[in-house]
Amino acid sequence: MADQSVSIPDFSKHDGLLPAIAQDATSGEVLMLAYMNAESYAQTLATGQAVYYSRSRGRLWAKGEESGNVQIIRGIYVDCDGDTILLKVEQVGGAACHEGYKSCFFREVAPEGLRVVAERVFDPDEVYKKKDAEP
Amino acid sequence: MADQSVSIPDFSKHDGLLPAIAQDATSGEVLMLAYMNAESYAQTLATGQAVYYSRSRGRLWAKGEESGNVQIIRGIYVDCDGDTILLKVEQVGGAACHEGYKSCFFREVAPEGLRVVAERVFDPDEVYKKKDAEP
Repeated sequence: MADQSVSIPDFSKHDGLLPAIAQDATSGEVLMLAYMNAESYAQTLATGQAVYYSRSRGRLWAKGEESGNVQIIRGIYVDCDGDTILLKVEQVGGAACHEGYKSCFFREVAPEGLRVVAERVFDPDEVYKKKDAEP
Repeated sequence: MADQSVSIPDFSKHDGLLPAIAQDATSGEVLMLAYMNAESYAQTLATGQAVYYSRSRGRLWAKGEESGNVQIIRGIYVDCDGDTILLKVEQVGGAACHEGYKSCFFREVAPEGLRVVAERVFDPDEVYKKKDAEP
């Protein structure tokens, strides 16, 4: 509920990790979903660029720290329960996905299986020189 | 990664509960985020309407089962890691949020605090006759 007496976003929920949706501020395309803890949220506010918490790496992850494809924050929204974050962003480099697509949701569920419904914006092998590509 | 040898969405991850974003198929507005387990995902495919798993209730939750505001599936997408679902939906009743707003993300983070940036589509007290409003 929209109880203003608790901190919103409410990082006391869900072990302090809340899902954050990144949406292209201009086109409305949903680019990706990642997670934030209180520290990454604070850094996002402070820097004006998306900083997530990488569950696989167990550390803060400034989006684009390796690829340069940072996300410039245009707006931050919270849901009715205060435990999901929506970021409207300007995606630098035109692609959010480490596989080179604009959106991480480049595959549609079709009767015959998964169907790729987007074109690659970049070649991941060119952009990520190291093995541990984000996210 | 986009490994086709595992089931996608991959419900073997994250204790079998994956976040599912519902996006208005026409306007692109992000409506809400909820969770799906394998059973709710299967029911979504079978019925053509969004069925989630309510973590608070501990049971399947057919969106709109109480309010009538069902979500008709127009497309299902999965992310690069196979552990997040994006639904493009037609939102019956024009509002996804149990608080009466089109989107659950009706509050923006502003320097002075949270700011409501949408108008109510319906009065929750009229739509929800029971106390345990969804979600």
